Amino acid sequence: MFADIASFHAWYTEQRRSQKSRTERIALEALDGWTTEPSTGNLVHRTGRFFSIQGLDVVRSGRAIDAWQQPIIVQPEQGILGILVKEFDGVPHCLLQLKMEPGNVNGLQLSPTVQATRSNFTGVHGGRAVPYLDHFTTPRVGRILSDVLQSEQASWFLAKRNRNMIVQVDQDVPLLPNFCWLSFEQIAALLREPNLVNMDTRTVLAGAAALRTPRQPPAGNSFGAALARSWTAGYALHTTVELLSWFTEAKNRCVLTRRLVPLTGIHGWSHRRGSVVHDRGQHFAVVGVAVEAPDREVTHWHQPMFEPRSQGVIAFLVRRLRGVPHLLLHARTETGALDGVEMAPTVQCQPDNYSLLHPDHAPTFLHHVLAAAPDRIRHDSVQSEEGGRFYHAQNRYLLVEVEDDFPLDVPPDYAWVTPRQLTEFVRYGNHLNVEARSLLTFLGFYKEDNE
Amino acid sequence: MFADIASFHAWYTEQRRSQKSRTERIALEALDGWTTEPSTGNLVHRTGRFFSIQGLDVVRSGRAIDAWQQPIIVQPEQGILGILVKEFDGVPHCLLQLKMEPGNVNGLQLSPTVQATRSNFTGVHGGRAVPYLDHFTTPRVGRILSDVLQSEQASWFLAKRNRNMIVQVDQDVPLLPNFCWLSFEQIAALLREPNLVNMDTRTVLAGAAALRTPRQPPAGNSFGAALARSWTAGYALHTTVELLSWFTEAKNRCVLTRRLVPLTGIHGWSHRRGSVVHDRGQHFAVVGVAVEAPDREVTHWHQPMFEPRSQGVIAFLVRRLRGVPHLLLHARTETGALDGVEMAPTVQCQPDNYSLLHPDHAPTFLHHVLAAAPDRIRHDSVQSEEGGRFYHAQNRYLLVEVEDDFPLDVPPDYAWVTPRQLTEFVRYGNHLNVEARSLLTFLGFYKEDNE
Repeated sequence: MFADIASFHAWYTEQRRSQKSRTERIALEALDGWTTEPSTGNLVHRTGRFFSIQGLDVVRSGRAIDAWQQPIIVQPEQGILGILVKEFDGVPHCLLQLKMEPGNVNGLQLSPTVQATRSNFTGVHGGRAVPYLDHFTTPRVGRILSDVLQSEQASWFLAKRNRNMIVQVDQDVPLLPNFCWLSFEQIAALLREPNLVNMDTRTVLAGAAALRTPRQPPAGNSFGAALARSWTAGYALHTTVELLSWFTEAKNRCVLTRRLVPLTGIHGWSHRRGSVVHDRGQHFAVVGVAVEAPDREVTHWHQPMFEPRSQGVIAFLVRRLRGVPHLLLHARTETGALDGVEMAPTVQCQPDNYSLLHPDHAPTFLHHVLAAAPDRIRHDSVQSEEGGRFYHAQNRYLLVEVEDDFPLDVPPDYAWVTPRQLTEFVRYGNHLNVEARSLLTFLGFYKEDNE
Repeated sequence: MFADIASFHAWYTEQRRSQKSRTERIALEALDGWTTEPSTGNLVHRTGRFFSIQGLDVVRSGRAIDAWQQPIIVQPEQGILGILVKEFDGVPHCLLQLKMEPGNVNGLQLSPTVQATRSNFTGVHGGRAVPYLDHFTTPRVGRILSDVLQSEQASWFLAKRNRNMIVQVDQDVPLLPNFCWLSFEQIAALLREPNLVNMDTRTVLAGAAALRTPRQPPAGNSFGAALARSWTAGYALHTTVELLSWFTEAKNRCVLTRRLVPLTGIHGWSHRRGSVVHDRGQHFAVVGVAVEAPDREVTHWHQPMFEPRSQGVIAFLVRRLRGVPHLLLHARTETGALDGVEMAPTVQCQPDNYSLLHPDHAPTFLHHVLAAAPDRIRHDSVQSEEGGRFYHAQNRYLLVEVEDDFPLDVPPDYAWVTPRQLTEFVRYGNHLNVEARSLLTFLGFYKEDNE
């Protein structure tokens, strides 16, 4: 337990010093354990397991660019992302670990108690047993607070999902090295820091967004006070039935067709100097890395990763209606998602990808986010995406509160929803995408500057 | 409006006399407008639209027979199944139509207000406009009561879904020929009759199961009274969080893999005398039909259909706990469903398919349904599946109330849930399968013998 955030940082600094690891870029052809399938050019592991990189053909996406081809990560197996919660002196704490991932810009980030692929926990790696895993398998002694199969980055994964679990226990739990107990309030503070709370932790914590509700919601007109009051009750512009209908309508409208194609020869991409790169240098590249990590269950390995070419922007516009913050949700065609359309942030893009297009094709509402006055920005932090598959993938996450004269009337694939309504939808898979879940966590663990 | 059920039947008889139609079995090779793709043997429409019949390869299903191949209907486009509701003198009525479908055993059945494929309403058929469709598209004047993308028969369809909608209006609605207004109570009576309320109507009405709740739930110990009290509140063995976790666990356990293969040469099936049949005469056959229906938007056409080889059994076991009926729900691997696992009835099978297997492989709980004493059977009716794709497909639907000593402890893929909890799950797609939704409708529109 940490008495304050400074003690956490002292421990974090110490851990970064002691957990040695090294990630080195190497050519895809040099990856040990991986082969290029002769007939397709797909990158596959020699065991046929873990994941593969194939080509995806997308048509009728309904986006500014309607059809394209791209590399995609295919990882059919579902892992477990689990966080253990326990009260100490009546205060709930989460058990997190400082874990090295090869794609992290800063080596160690705060990961869930358990972050395991099926290969991890069935022993395919030949690695060590996954600690604390028995709390997340049946039969268990703890109490389930949240348990749902959630999608991951649909621009880079095909139909990838992980089981997101929060389990509360009462009995003693041994504290292993690299692990720590953090209170909800400490997590709220750490979520404001860049690249510290990893994506897996953020998506799992979305299931706890409403659990941090104070028993006595604060009075006052600040954004934090209005937000704190909104979790349990209050006005909503649309009923849940109306929002589910809006979402169904968007799915019904979607005529997206996608199919796997050989990685070799996908249009707009080339294999150059050991990587697969986009011909205009946009989006991302498929690169190889060699990893040494003495503290991981497997201590060295090679793997391909996706390396984004630019930083993304992920943001909710927020407008108060009758005092209740409403988020502008986007029913977004998600090319890799199992169900084609998911509930997404107002804005989610790599702005650089649009630099070559006519300004009319800029993502809707991007301007409102980028041009927001500093005093309208409620959250602004740069965070990492999953460091096990993505190399130095960073996005800027924002919550921007618009003025009261911002139009309520929005395009048909957008809708105003309350944070409380999001906590209903997040219980069901295939609803909130991973980017919206990160933002829901920033809302659930919101902390004002002066708190 | 009908003063009583007898007046409805008089009208129904008259309609059956006046709506002439004829369905004739013909060989698949003789189907006008359909061709067999030379390279695959798949049955496709010459326009490439509507639907196709392909082969499906299934492995690791986890069922008694773990792997198999079969013909499957591939129909990616989503249609609309919509029911219009309007109050007359304060009593809500549904607008249903008597519609001929080629697969119906009895020609006409009660269909939703709108039952339209995308081809129907975008005019691919070259048919007439779909009446009342504007109530189910935006912008609309009515109020949405339910709107969700729901799966259909996963043994016969690959990832087929339709939009299920209930819309309530206040303004006048013209009554077209073949259409009628039926009160919820009249529908409750008609649902007890065989092959009258079609599958599409039953699945849409599942979204209204909780809407029929009387303002003053009846007292007493009858099943109907206990059920009526259960829709709004009351005890539940498991919380919703626990049930969602149980469902997630089942999905996480599922390692089903399926892929489309050419229809020609699928194992266990043969093309014989104009049909595709199972080598042991089980499951179903793919047959061709020629249809004449002067009252339909298109008056004559040919098409392939699936014809089941035997009648199925679809049943919930029900046990009262603290006076509240609990249904034994099955998290079932659904080979054709988008999401692999859906919430299904306790029993759902064609018993004849198991006649050649060792009795140990009989479906779990089938014996409890078939051997139930008559005084434990709360509902028992033979109903048709979708007559647009299935030829004379009938299932026996049952609700069987077990004794109080029936074990609460059930296999891990089963769980006891209340009707109220089902009404939560049915709002979200990919949860209740179509068979469970029919049973939910029988529960929502339950009527005791003496009522």
